[in-house]
Amino acid sequence: MVWVINMSSTSQRTSDISFFFEPRSVAVVGATNNPLKFGHYVVLNLIDLGYKGKVYPVNLKADEVLGLKAYPRVDLIPDEVEVVAIIVPAPSVPQVVRDCAKKGVKGVVILSSGFREAGGERVRFEREIVETARKAGIRIVGPNTTGVLNTSNGFTTSFAPLPNLRKGNVAFIAQTGLFAAAAFWWILSAEPFGLSKVIGLGNKSDVDDSDALEYLAHDEDTEVIVIYLEGVKDGRKFLKAVRKAAKKKPVLILKSGITEAGVKAAMSHTASLVVKDEIFDAVCKKVGAIRVKDFEELMDLAKAFALQPLSKGNRIGIVSMTGAGCVMAADYSAEYGLDVAKLSDETVKHIESYLPSWIRVKNPFDSEMLFESVGPEDCLRISLGGVLGDENVDCAVCVLPSSPMFAFDVEGPVKEIKEKYPDKPFAMNFIGSKDLVDLWTKQLEDMSVPVYPSIERCVRALGALSKYPNITRAPISDSQ
Amino acid sequence: MVWVINMSSTSQRTSDISFFFEPRSVAVVGATNNPLKFGHYVVLNLIDLGYKGKVYPVNLKADEVLGLKAYPRVDLIPDEVEVVAIIVPAPSVPQVVRDCAKKGVKGVVILSSGFREAGGERVRFEREIVETARKAGIRIVGPNTTGVLNTSNGFTTSFAPLPNLRKGNVAFIAQTGLFAAAAFWWILSAEPFGLSKVIGLGNKSDVDDSDALEYLAHDEDTEVIVIYLEGVKDGRKFLKAVRKAAKKKPVLILKSGITEAGVKAAMSHTASLVVKDEIFDAVCKKVGAIRVKDFEELMDLAKAFALQPLSKGNRIGIVSMTGAGCVMAADYSAEYGLDVAKLSDETVKHIESYLPSWIRVKNPFDSEMLFESVGPEDCLRISLGGVLGDENVDCAVCVLPSSPMFAFDVEGPVKEIKEKYPDKPFAMNFIGSKDLVDLWTKQLEDMSVPVYPSIERCVRALGALSKYPNITRAPISDSQ
Repeated sequence: MVWVINMSSTSQRTSDISFFFEPRSVAVVGATNNPLKFGHYVVLNLIDLGYKGKVYPVNLKADEVLGLKAYPRVDLIPDEVEVVAIIVPAPSVPQVVRDCAKKGVKGVVILSSGFREAGGERVRFEREIVETARKAGIRIVGPNTTGVLNTSNGFTTSFAPLPNLRKGNVAFIAQTGLFAAAAFWWILSAEPFGLSKVIGLGNKSDVDDSDALEYLAHDEDTEVIVIYLEGVKDGRKFLKAVRKAAKKKPVLILKSGITEAGVKAAMSHTASLVVKDEIFDAVCKKVGAIRVKDFEELMDLAKAFALQPLSKGNRIGIVSMTGAGCVMAADYSAEYGLDVAKLSDETVKHIESYLPSWIRVKNPFDSEMLFESVGPEDCLRISLGGVLGDENVDCAVCVLPSSPMFAFDVEGPVKEIKEKYPDKPFAMNFIGSKDLVDLWTKQLEDMSVPVYPSIERCVRALGALSKYPNITRAPISDSQ
Repeated sequence: MVWVINMSSTSQRTSDISFFFEPRSVAVVGATNNPLKFGHYVVLNLIDLGYKGKVYPVNLKADEVLGLKAYPRVDLIPDEVEVVAIIVPAPSVPQVVRDCAKKGVKGVVILSSGFREAGGERVRFEREIVETARKAGIRIVGPNTTGVLNTSNGFTTSFAPLPNLRKGNVAFIAQTGLFAAAAFWWILSAEPFGLSKVIGLGNKSDVDDSDALEYLAHDEDTEVIVIYLEGVKDGRKFLKAVRKAAKKKPVLILKSGITEAGVKAAMSHTASLVVKDEIFDAVCKKVGAIRVKDFEELMDLAKAFALQPLSKGNRIGIVSMTGAGCVMAADYSAEYGLDVAKLSDETVKHIESYLPSWIRVKNPFDSEMLFESVGPEDCLRISLGGVLGDENVDCAVCVLPSSPMFAFDVEGPVKEIKEKYPDKPFAMNFIGSKDLVDLWTKQLEDMSVPVYPSIERCVRALGALSKYPNITRAPISDSQ
C-alpha cells in the first residue's frame, strides 16, 4: 500500500485520554503571581473559566498563587492529582516529570518549549521525559504547546487569554499552541460558530492526533472536527482514527509542510516527520476526510458544517443579481464538483410569471430584471425560494449586490426561505457597500445561514457539504 | 499561433475614446423625475458628482428633470452634444440612435438591456443600432451596462448610486454594469485604495476591452488596470492592447466563463465569444498581464499594486510569532514563485543577540521567543525590521497573533520599518481577536501597508509584486 510508505507500524495501543479534558484535579508547575510570566495565566484561566475541579499551584518559593495554596513540588501535594500542567524552563522539566511519577498522576501537559525542536542536547530532555512517563504509565501532551481546553467544564491548561468563551460544536486539534490560541481568539470574535474542545499537540512526544481524534469522535459536544497538521508520526494509526471519526462526523484537515520550504520550517518547529503531499491527499479522500488548503478554507468549511445541513446531492441552484455572479458561480460549481441543476418546468414557469415576456428563466438565474419587476424582498422570495424549492436542486448560492442607497430587508425573506427548506443548504455572497454587507452578514449568520466574502468560497463550502455523505457512504476496504 | 484560434482578425482601427470619459456635454435619454426608474439616477449622479459639463435630460413628456431643462428628442437639443446615455426599453433604442446620428454625437452609452443577450428578434435591435452608429461615425459603449465613470471630473453614465466618491490610482474595466457598480461600492467602502476610471462594457457591440485599455494605458490618473472579462471578441487586438498597457502599468485580468457551465452562463449573459482557458492563461503570461482567479484575488492584488512598491526580486523573508505561520508561509512562498531567503550572517547575529543562547535564528523566523525576550514592539522592530534590512531579502511577510489581552502598538514600529525600507514591499497577516485585527488593519492600511486575512493571500500578493518587473522586462517577440 503506497500510502503507508515512511510510516512506522503502530503499537495499536488504544487508550482513553478523556482525563486530559475532564480531570477532577490539576496541578500547575510554574504557577506564579508574576503577571509577566505565562505560568500566571494558566491558573488565572482556570479561575476565570470557572473550572470546578481542584487547582494546585506548584511554585518553589510562593505559599499561594492567585489566592490558592501553593506547593513546592507535585509529589508534596497531599491530595489526588490527575493532570499536571508544566511551564518551567526545559532543563527543569525532567525532574518535574519524575515528581509526577512519584505522585502517580495520569497525565502531564508540557507547555514549555526548548526540547526536540531546539535540537542539540535538548533532544535528550524530551527522551528522558518520555521514558520516565512511559515507565510510570503517564500520558504526555506536548511539549511545546498550550495544551487543552474544554469549553463545557471550563478546564484548560492554556496560558493564552481566553475571554468571551462560547461553547459550540466544532473541535479543533492543532499542532502548535499559539496558533491554536490565535485561531481560538479568531473563532470566538469573528466566526458564527463556537468550539467544543481544543487540543494543541506540540511535539507530540506521546499523545497525538489519533488519540485526540478517537476521543473527539465519541465526544457528544463535538459535531465537526478540524485538524491543523504539520506531520504524522504514525500514519497507520492516524488514518485508522480518521476513518473511524469520519464515519461519525465531518473531519477537516489542514496540512501544511507540503513544499520543501514548508517541510524545512515544520521540521525545525515541531520536529515532525512529514508525509509526501500527494500521498496524503489520496489518503484523506480514501478515509473520508476533507482536506483544505489554508486556514481560511478551514474556517469556511467549519462554518458550513457547523451551521448547515449536509447536501443530499450535488445539484446547485444559482441566483445572482449580477450576470457576472452567474458566470463565476457556474465556473466554480464545475471546479468544486457541483452540477448546475436543470430547473423543473414548474419553477421556470413560476418565476417567468413575474417577468417581462421576452425573458427566459434558467439556472444560473440572473435576477436583475426580477428585482426591477417585483422589488428586492419579493425578488429574493421568488428567485432563491423558487430555486431551493425545486426538486432538481440540492443546494443553492445567492449573490446580491448591496447598494448604499437601497437598504432593503434581506433578513426577513431569507428567514422564510430557510424555514421552508430546512434540509437544503445554501450560502450567500454580498458585494457592494461594506456597511450593508456587514449588517446582512451578521443578520444571516445569526440565523445559521453562512455568508462568504467571495462567490468561490460560497460554492466551495456547498461543494464540501455535498461531498461528505458520498465519501462516508462509499465502501471502505478492510485491507488497511 | 495556437492562441489566436477562434479569434477574428482585427480591423486595426485605433481610435481615441477619451470623449467617453471627458465629454463637454451629455444627454440622458430616459431621464425622469420618477425615483423608481434607473433613468432618474443617471442625472442625479451627474449632479451629485459635480460634473461641470452640460447635462441635457431627454424625456418625451417632461419639461424638466431634476431642475434641468428637458428635451423630447436628442436631435431637438439646440447645443452640441458629445455623449448620449440611453436608458429606455430596447425596442425604442434603434430610433434614439438614429436621432443621435442626425444630431452628430460622438458616442452613445446604451444602458438598457434586452438585446443580443436576450436572443430571438432582439439580436436584430443590436445589429440595427451598430449599423446606424457605424455609418454615422458614432462609437457605442454597451448595450447592457452602466457605462463609464471618471472620478477626476465627476462624469458618469451610471444609474448605480455612487456615494463617497474617492479618487485613486486603480482603473476598472468590467464586462457588466451592476457587477462593476457593486465592485465600486465595495472598493469605496472596504478597500484602502481608490479608483480613477470605471468602464462597464456590457455586450461590447463596439467599444471593447482593447479600446478601454488603450485609453487607460495613457491615462495619468491610472497606475493599475484591473479587468473583469467574460469573453474576447477580437483576440489579436486585445492582446496587443494588453501588451502595450502592461509595459506601462500592471494589468490584472479576472476572466470567468472558463468551464462549460460558466461559458453557458456567459453566452446568455453578455453574448461574448469565449476563448479556451488554457490558451488564455498562456497568452496572459506572454503579454505581461497577471491573471487572477476570482474577485477576491483581484482586490488583493490591486491593493498590493496600488499601495506598495514592486519587489526587486523574489527572495522573501518570513516572520511569524506562531510556528504554524512559518510553515504555512514557507509553503505558499514555493507555490507563488518566491524563494525563502537565506538571511545574512549579520542579520542572524543581530537577532540572536536578543535571544536565549540555545535559539538559532533562520528564515522563516519564529519570533515567539523574541517576543518573550524583548516585548512586542521591539520584537517587531528587530524581527521584521531586521529581515527587511537584509540585503538577501526582497520582500517580507509578517504574521502576528492578536491576543485580546495584549493590545500592543503595531502601528508605531511598522511605520518606522516602512520609512526605513521604502523600496521593499511587505504584507501583514493578523489572526486572533477580531477587534484588534480590525484596528491594526485600519492603522496599517492607512499608511499603505496591505493586510490580508490569510497568510496565503499575503504571499500571493508579494508573489505578484515580485513577478511583474520580470514579466515586463522579458523580451516580447514581435511575431504577433
